[in-house]
Amino acid sequence: QHWFMKVLLGSLGAALVLTAGILLGHFGIQRGSTAPDWVMDVTQDVDEALIQKFIVEVDNIAIQENLRELTKVPHMATSPGDEQTVQYMLKRWQDPDTGLDQAWREEYKVYLSFPDPNTPNKVTVVSPSDAVLYTAREKEKAYSSDQEDPEVVQPYAAYAPAGHPKGRLVYANQGKPSDYFLLNQTLNLTGTVAITRYGGEGRAGKAINAAPYGVIGVLVYTDPWDINDGKMSDNNETYPFSWYMPPSGVERGSFNTHYGDMLTPYLAAKDDTYRIPEKNITGIPPIPTQPIGFEDAYALICELGGEPAPSEWQGAFNCTYNFGGPGFKPTSNFNNSDVKLDIYNREELKNSANVMGVIRGSVEPDRYVIYGNHRDSWVHGAIDPSSGTSVMLEVTRVLGRMVKQGKWRPRRSIIFGSWGAEEFGLIGSTEYTEEYYSKLSERSVAYINVDIAVKTPGSDSTSVYDNWIRYFNRTSPAYGVIPNVGFLTGAGSDYAAFIHFLGITSMDISYTYDRTKTRARIYPAYHTAYDTFDYASKFIDPGFTSHQTVARTAGNVLIRLADSLLLPFNCSDYAETLEGYLSKAMELYTDGLAAHMISIGGSQSLAYTHTHTHTHTQRGMGGQRKGHVIWASSKAGQATFPGLADAYTRAASTGLDSDWKEAHRQLSILIQAIQGAAHTLGDAI
Amino acid sequence: QHWFMKVLLGSLGAALVLTAGILLGHFGIQRGSTAPDWVMDVTQDVDEALIQKFIVEVDNIAIQENLRELTKVPHMATSPGDEQTVQYMLKRWQDPDTGLDQAWREEYKVYLSFPDPNTPNKVTVVSPSDAVLYTAREKEKAYSSDQEDPEVVQPYAAYAPAGHPKGRLVYANQGKPSDYFLLNQTLNLTGTVAITRYGGEGRAGKAINAAPYGVIGVLVYTDPWDINDGKMSDNNETYPFSWYMPPSGVERGSFNTHYGDMLTPYLAAKDDTYRIPEKNITGIPPIPTQPIGFEDAYALICELGGEPAPSEWQGAFNCTYNFGGPGFKPTSNFNNSDVKLDIYNREELKNSANVMGVIRGSVEPDRYVIYGNHRDSWVHGAIDPSSGTSVMLEVTRVLGRMVKQGKWRPRRSIIFGSWGAEEFGLIGSTEYTEEYYSKLSERSVAYINVDIAVKTPGSDSTSVYDNWIRYFNRTSPAYGVIPNVGFLTGAGSDYAAFIHFLGITSMDISYTYDRTKTRARIYPAYHTAYDTFDYASKFIDPGFTSHQTVARTAGNVLIRLADSLLLPFNCSDYAETLEGYLSKAMELYTDGLAAHMISIGGSQSLAYTHTHTHTHTQRGMGGQRKGHVIWASSKAGQATFPGLADAYTRAASTGLDSDWKEAHRQLSILIQAIQGAAHTLGDAI
Repeated sequence: QHWFMKVLLGSLGAALVLTAGILLGHFGIQRGSTAPDWVMDVTQDVDEALIQKFIVEVDNIAIQENLRELTKVPHMATSPGDEQTVQYMLKRWQDPDTGLDQAWREEYKVYLSFPDPNTPNKVTVVSPSDAVLYTAREKEKAYSSDQEDPEVVQPYAAYAPAGHPKGRLVYANQGKPSDYFLLNQTLNLTGTVAITRYGGEGRAGKAINAAPYGVIGVLVYTDPWDINDGKMSDNNETYPFSWYMPPSGVERGSFNTHYGDMLTPYLAAKDDTYRIPEKNITGIPPIPTQPIGFEDAYALICELGGEPAPSEWQGAFNCTYNFGGPGFKPTSNFNNSDVKLDIYNREELKNSANVMGVIRGSVEPDRYVIYGNHRDSWVHGAIDPSSGTSVMLEVTRVLGRMVKQGKWRPRRSIIFGSWGAEEFGLIGSTEYTEEYYSKLSERSVAYINVDIAVKTPGSDSTSVYDNWIRYFNRTSPAYGVIPNVGFLTGAGSDYAAFIHFLGITSMDISYTYDRTKTRARIYPAYHTAYDTFDYASKFIDPGFTSHQTVARTAGNVLIRLADSLLLPFNCSDYAETLEGYLSKAMELYTDGLAAHMISIGGSQSLAYTHTHTHTHTQRGMGGQRKGHVIWASSKAGQATFPGLADAYTRAASTGLDSDWKEAHRQLSILIQAIQGAAHTLGDAI
Repeated sequence: QHWFMKVLLGSLGAALVLTAGILLGHFGIQRGSTAPDWVMDVTQDVDEALIQKFIVEVDNIAIQENLRELTKVPHMATSPGDEQTVQYMLKRWQDPDTGLDQAWREEYKVYLSFPDPNTPNKVTVVSPSDAVLYTAREKEKAYSSDQEDPEVVQPYAAYAPAGHPKGRLVYANQGKPSDYFLLNQTLNLTGTVAITRYGGEGRAGKAINAAPYGVIGVLVYTDPWDINDGKMSDNNETYPFSWYMPPSGVERGSFNTHYGDMLTPYLAAKDDTYRIPEKNITGIPPIPTQPIGFEDAYALICELGGEPAPSEWQGAFNCTYNFGGPGFKPTSNFNNSDVKLDIYNREELKNSANVMGVIRGSVEPDRYVIYGNHRDSWVHGAIDPSSGTSVMLEVTRVLGRMVKQGKWRPRRSIIFGSWGAEEFGLIGSTEYTEEYYSKLSERSVAYINVDIAVKTPGSDSTSVYDNWIRYFNRTSPAYGVIPNVGFLTGAGSDYAAFIHFLGITSMDISYTYDRTKTRARIYPAYHTAYDTFDYASKFIDPGFTSHQTVARTAGNVLIRLADSLLLPFNCSDYAETLEGYLSKAMELYTDGLAAHMISIGGSQSLAYTHTHTHTHTQRGMGGQRKGHVIWASSKAGQATFPGLADAYTRAASTGLDSDWKEAHRQLSILIQAIQGAAHTLGDAI
C-alpha cells in the first residue's frame, strides 16, 4: 500500500503549519526525555503499525453481508426502502462495540420528481386514425424476484415535465448541439419527437438542445454499442448470463445540469427556507422526455425513413440508422404514424435524510477529515451506491472497534456522511455544505468519496500499485513514471459540492474499467432494475475482494489524513497541474483571444503564476453557482481552467461579441484568483 | 487614554489563538529564567511605556505643517495636484530617518467623471423667447487666492450624464421617494426640472427617484437651514468670518450609490481587466444633474409659483417655498420661463494611485493591521481628507523613527494606505481589497480609518474619555455607562470595502460635532473651494491640538492592535449588538412577515443565536455587491440586520409579492449565516 504515500507525500515544506512547526522545532530535540505527556500526544505522527492492523482487519465477507443488507429492497430517495437504510446506518454507527462516537440523522425538505405510480408514463406509436400500433414496455423484464418488487420505480426522466407530445420521430444521435444542428440541415424539426442515445451529452442537455428547433418530445435509450460491446440477446448474452444490460433494461436518471436542491440555491433546504418560484428553475428539460430500453429503441429506429445518418451516428442494431423522414419509412407498418409520449411526472417536496457520524479527534478535534457516500439508489442500487456504502460500513466497523476498545483515537476528527437524494442531483451533500458552509470551509482538511466502489470485474493477481501504474500512469518531472491521479472535473458524485463549492481537497476512489476488455461507457446495469446483490456478487466482484481492496485503500488514506502530524499534501503536484493548465490555455486560446483584443500574455497575465503558485480559490461572480477557478465542471473537455475553457469554447462557436466579453470576464476572474493566491505565497508582507 | 482599553479589552477568553495559547500555557511558568530569547519575543505583550512615549512625541505643529504641505494646491483624483501629494507621501514614507520599512505606489485604471474645463456646465433661466433671464454662478466667489487657483474644479455632479434639459422648475424638498410622490399628487412632473436640497437622501437618489415621474433635470443645493444654522450673509456671518458656508459655496460630490470602480465590479481595475459596458452601470443619475450655491437657489426658489410646500419642506430663506406651478409665479420676472441645464460632464479612464507603506512585524509578520485614509480631495481638501492624512503622517513619523532607531518593531505587520479616488466612490481602497482579496481576508486583523480627523471646533478643557462619555454614551449590561462606539453602517469612507466586503473588523475615528452648538449636517466648507488650510487653521482647529488628540488616539489603538499578545477584541460586545439587532428585528418585523406566511420565530429561527453567537459572516448571493449580513449599508435606518431591514421596508411599502419573497430570501440568508457562525462557536465537532 505504500504507493499511495508516494503520491500524497513528496515535499512537505510548503504545508508547514505554524503551531506544529514551532512545537516540532523546539521539542524535536527534547522529546523522549523531559517532554511532558501532552507534548508526546501533540507531536505524535501517523502510526504505520496501526495502518497495517487496519488493513488486516478489513474483511471481504463483512462487506458482502453489508451489501446484502443494504440491497434487500429498492431504496430510492425518501422511499420506505430509503428509511430502512437510514435505520440500518444508525444501528451500525450507534453500535456500542463497533460504532462511532456519535451518529444522528439530519433532514432537508427537497424538491424531487417522480412518475405517477397509478398512471405510468407511456410511449406509443399511433396511426393517423389514432390506432395504437406499438407500445413500449412500462417495466423492465423480470429475471428474478428483485425486478418484481412493487417498489421498483418505473423508468423515467426525473424533472422532465409532464405532457403528451405527439409527432413524427427523428433520430438525433446523442442529442448534442451539433447533432441537432446537422439534423436541422436535412429536415424541419418542428413538431417532431427525437430519439437519442445516452452518451456525449448530459441527460438534460438532450432535451434542452432540442427545444429551440421545435422538437416537442425526447426519447433516450442506451445503444448496445455503447454499453454491451454490441451484445443484445437475453437468451445467452446479457444478464442473467453476463454483466451486460438486457434488452428491456433502462437507465433512469436525474435530468438536470446543476446540483443541489433546485428551489434553495446556496441555502440549506429547511422547512422555513425561502424557495424560488418553480418557473425560475433552469437546467431541466423544457419538453417531455422518457428513457426506454434498446429493445423498444430497435423497434422504432430500424423503421425510420429519410436519409441514412452519418457513420458516427450508427450503433449496434443490425439496420441502418436513418434520420427519419421525419417519421417512419413508407414500407414500414408505422408509415405516416406518430410517436406519442404520455408523461405524468410530478414534483414533490420530500424530507430527505443524511445520516452523520463522527469520531472525535484527540489533538485537533476542530479539524475535519470527511468521508462520505450517498445512500439512495434508483432501484436496489447494489453497485450504485451500495458497493461504496458497504465499504464505508466496513471502514467504520474496523475503526469504530479500535476506538471503542481504546486502542486508537485520530489526531483530527473524522466525519462520516451517508448522503440522501444524490441521484436527484447531489442534494443531501450539497445541502450539508450549504448549512455548515462557514465551519466546513474553515476546518475541513479533505473529503473522501467512495460511491461506486467497484465498477468492473477485476483480477487480484497483482498489487494495486502495479495495476494502477500499468493502466493509468503519467510522467512527472519530479518522480518519473507514477500512477496517475485523475481530476475531479465532473460533478458525478457527492465530491462536487466539497471541491467545487467549498474548495476542500477531495478524492474519489473506485476500482475502474480495463479498457482493453470493454468499451462499455459504464457498468451495464447502471441505474437499472438489474443492479442487484445477485448481479454484484456474480458478475462484478465474486468473493468481494475488489471491494476489500478499495476499503483498505480508502481507510489507509483516511487514517493518514486524520493522523499525520503534517498533512500529506503535495504542493508541487498542484503547481505541476497549474502549469499544465496554463500551457494548455496559452496554446489553445492566445490567438483567438488576441483576435478579439483580449490579452492573455501581457504583463498582468498568468505568466506570473509560473514560478511558485499553488492553491485553490473559490470566488463567485453572481449568476450561476459560484465555482472553483481550478476545479469545477467544464463542458470544454480540456485540461485547463474550466471557466475560461467553457467561455472561450462558446465564444469561438457563436462568434457573438457578448460571448467574447464573457470570455474576457472569465479570464480576468482567473487572473485575479491566481494572482491572489500567488500574493499569499509571496513574502509575508 | 486608558478609557479606550475599557472598550476594546474586556473578556479575552474567546479570542484565544491556539498557538499563543499553547506557548503561554507552557512558558508562562518558565519565562524569565530558562526560556530562550525567541520565547521572550514570541510571548512579549504590548508595552505601555512605549505607548506613553508615542503619545508624548505626537506633535501638533508637525501635523499643522503636514496639512500646509498637503493643501498647497487642489488635488482632485488624478490631477497634477494629486500627483504632487503622491510624491510627498512617498518622500515621507521613504525617509531614511522617519520613514517606513518600505513604501511604493500602486495604480488602477478607473472610471471617473469630470466637467469639461473648456465648456463649463451652466444653469440659466430662459424666457419663452429664449432670452437668458438669469445665470447661476459657474464658480464659487474668491475670498483668498485659494479660490482663484485655475485647478479649482467647477462644481458638478460626478457621473451625472451630459445633456440640455429645459423645463418648468419645481421644488422637491430632499428628493426622497416620498417627496416626489407627494409633489406628483399636486402637479404633473413630466418635463419639469426639480430643485432639491442636500440631506435626507443620497446624492444620486435625488435624480434616480425623480426620473420615473418624467422629471428631466435635477438641481441640488445646500439650504442654510441645514448647514449654516440659518446664517446667509458673507458680509459678516459666513466664511471668511466664520466656519459657515458662503452664499456661493457648492458641495461637489460623486453621484453614485455603489462603491468601487463602476466598470470592474469585484475585479481590480488593471489595464487588461474586463470592463462591463457603460450602459450596464446602475446607481447613477439617469438625467442631468447639477449642484448650485444657496445664493442661486434663493433666486430660483423664492420665485416659484404653485401651492406652498409643507412646513417640513421649508428652509431658511425668507420666503415661502412653493411647489412650483410648475414654474415661477405669475408675478415673477421669470413668469412662463424655463430653467435650463447645460451639462458637459464626461467620463474618462484615468490612472489613480494608492500609496502603500509597511512596517514589518517581528513575530507575526503575516498578520496585518491596516491603517488608511484617502488622499484625493475635491478642491484643496484641508479637512476632507487632508486632516486625516496629516494625522496619519504624524503617526508614521513617530512610529517610523522608533523603527529606524531600532527601538521598536511591532509584533504584527502594519500596512499604511493612502487611497486614491475615494471621492468618486471609495475607488482606490475598493480596488485594493479586490486585488488582494484572498490575502487580506485571511490575514487582516483590523482596519483603522481616519478620514476627516476633526469636524468641528473643540474644547481641550477635558479628557477624550470624559468628553466622549458625556456626549455619546450607552448603558452596557456588562460595564454600566460607557462611551458609545457607533456602527459603521454607512459607506461614507474607505472602511466600507474592508468591513462590508472583506469582513474585517474596522474602526473610523474622528473628533465630531457637539450637537448643542450646531445643527449643521456636516462642517459647512465640506466639498467646497473653502475647505482650505486657512479655514482649518482659523475655524476648525487653531493650534491643531484636536488633530494631535486624534493622532494620539489612533496611534494608541494601532499599537495595541499590532503589539497585543492576544487581540483586544471584545466578543461580548459583538453578542450584545447581535442581541440588540435580533430584538429590534423581532419587534419590527415579526407580525408583518407572519402576515405573508414567513416565519421569523419558528424552530429554525434566530432565537437560536441568543445564547452564544458572535462573528461576522460575509457571503454573497449574486446580484448586488455581496454584503455583510451584520455590517453593511442600510437605507432602513434601523439598528438591525441590514439586508432584512431594507427588504422588509421595501416590501411593506410596495406590498408586491415579489418584494415579500425577497424579504423571505433575506431572512433565510441571515438565518443561515448566523446559524453557520453559531455552529463554529459550538463544540469542536
